[in-house]
Amino acid sequence: MIKATLPVLLLALTSTFAKYIPKTGRRIPQTLSRGWGDQLIWAQTYEEALYWSRSRNKPLMVLFHLEDCPHSQAFKKVFSEDDKVQKMLDEDFIVLNLMYETTDKHLSPDGQYVPRILFVDPSMTVRADINGRYGNRLYAYEPTDMGLLFSNMEKAKKLLKSEL
Amino acid sequence: MIKATLPVLLLALTSTFAKYIPKTGRRIPQTLSRGWGDQLIWAQTYEEALYWSRSRNKPLMVLFHLEDCPHSQAFKKVFSEDDKVQKMLDEDFIVLNLMYETTDKHLSPDGQYVPRILFVDPSMTVRADINGRYGNRLYAYEPTDMGLLFSNMEKAKKLLKSEL
Repeated sequence: MIKATLPVLLLALTSTFAKYIPKTGRRIPQTLSRGWGDQLIWAQTYEEALYWSRSRNKPLMVLFHLEDCPHSQAFKKVFSEDDKVQKMLDEDFIVLNLMYETTDKHLSPDGQYVPRILFVDPSMTVRADINGRYGNRLYAYEPTDMGLLFSNMEKAKKLLKSEL
Repeated sequence: MIKATLPVLLLALTSTFAKYIPKTGRRIPQTLSRGWGDQLIWAQTYEEALYWSRSRNKPLMVLFHLEDCPHSQAFKKVFSEDDKVQKMLDEDFIVLNLMYETTDKHLSPDGQYVPRILFVDPSMTVRADINGRYGNRLYAYEPTDMGLLFSNMEKAKKLLKSEL
């Protein structure tokens, strides 16, 4: 019941400050989290995320999703409400959620489906070895896979040795 | 006076719904607009922006800025409050604001300074011919340049003919 009022509150809030008003009416400002964790600090682009990952020596989690995909939405609900996962992401990871594919083919080792999670080591190596439980979509996760995701995050935290 | 309360309101709002709370305290969710126009629909990445530009046959405006750059902040204030510019951007353009450079060198024809505005035609041609008034930084704009920016937007609306 409380959640249903969030868009209304945000709308009321923006209407107070916005000067330009679209013909179709006032809009709710888009957030970078897109609902996947409002308390996390999300990178905007893959370039930005890689820069943060390298400079802070933290692994990067890239999450591909779509707003009109019911699997993405169902997964988002449990993902955003999982305290353990949110805490570890906040403290130990760089996070990026994307609705459009990048030009880097390494982020789609077995195709461009959603929802899909890839981990990237600070050495800029995509951890294709860290995958979920579905043979035909190795980087897909479902709402029941949060435990597996958490243990995969622990794997990603064990950084690859730099060869430099 | 009213504006000063916005972060407080947003903070109050998120504290009602957020489950995970960072050790350093609750955060205000980041917006995609980053204050450059809360009523515009911003693309998140360059790939996404190019896709929208091509599929909707609208020119793209790419705006590079930094949150700790006083020139960016001064320009943002007049930019976000200029109704004419905001309306035309909303109705006739695809918009993208970035704080990190892309890998595409065409978006930095004369260097990677901020604030900097490049227009891209739906044919995916960067309009290096559309520039501001500063010879040493061709794509820079200052708060007094809103009239020039508007006329440059009108230039960008005259699409290049596709050679296909």
